[in-house]
Parts: sequence; C-alpha cells; structure tokens
Amino acid sequence: MAVLSLAAADGELRFTELRRAMAGVSQKMLSQTLKALERDGLVSRRVEASNPPRVHYRLTELGATLVPPLRGLREWAERYMPLVQEHAAG
Amino acid sequence: MAVLSLAAADGELRFTELRRAMAGVSQKMLSQTLKALERDGLVSRRVEASNPPRVHYRLTELGATLVPPLRGLREWAERYMPLVQEHAAG
Repeated sequence: MAVLSLAAADGELRFTELRRAMAGVSQKMLSQTLKALERDGLVSRRVEASNPPRVHYRLTELGATLVPPLRGLREWAERYMPLVQEHAAG
Repeated sequence: MAVLSLAAADGELRFTELRRAMAGVSQKMLSQTLKALERDGLVSRRVEASNPPRVHYRLTELGATLVPPLRGLREWAERYMPLVQEHAAG
C-alpha cells in the first residue's frame, strides 16, 4: 500500500501525506512498514533540516520495480474481492 | 503458493502432492490454507469414495483469476529478492 501510494505520488511524500493516503493504517504500522521498506532498499528517506525537521520518503529504483506486480494484485482485489467475500459469507 | 502449485498442475492435486510441491510448508499450514481457499471459493475439493477416501483439490474459475497477479509477484521475488536481501543485510 505504501509503495503504491509513493508510486502514485511520483516523487516524495511526507509521513503525514502517506498516512492520509492510506486510510485505516495506524501511525505505528506505517512507521514500522516504512522502516522495513527502507531497510530492504525499496524506499529512501530524506530529512530536511527545518525546525522541526521534515522527513520525506521516496521509492528507490528497486522499489519502483515492485509497483507493476503490486498494481496487478490490487486490480485483482478490486475486481474479485466482492466475489471472494460472498463465498466467505457462505 | 498453493494456488500456483495447483495452476501448474492444471488439474487436480492430492494433499500429499501439494505438500511435495511446496517444500517447507507444514501439514497444518497447508491444510489451514486449503480450508481458507475453499471457504473463499478459490479452490474446490472432491472426496473420492475409496478406502481410505482420497481428497483432490483443484482451482475454481475464481481461483484461476488470481494466478496472473500471483505469478507477477513470484517473478518479481525471484528476480529482485537477492537485491532486497543484500540491502537488509546492510
């Protein structure tokens, strides 16, 4: 989700902007996710020396390679999850 | 993984055949996964009245729609996970 939000932004996003784009995701979950994505080389982080400092996130080249398969999965979910939920409801 | 193994089989697979195709997946994990996939309408189950009874699994039409995006994700992982692991190793 964070990867796709950053891809849609096509540039940098701040933490608050990311949170707004990802309704329902807690602050803690988002910051853990970003830390993992950064550790894995999929997202880069730039700290602006303002007061208070501002943190900007961006997809790396490696991160950008993950966008097409994630978009494919999201498109599948948007189209078929209603059918899956019907089945699950029994 | 189970979905892709069933897709590769292009027909029915028995539990033991699925387990063999999915190295490292425990019996418990595989049976929970198959139950969830069946509940969600992605996999169908046929019990052959032999002694002991034999259970065969197959992708449903809905399940088959999930194969392309899952293949896309697997191809991404096969190609880029080495790079991600390099980053994660720091």
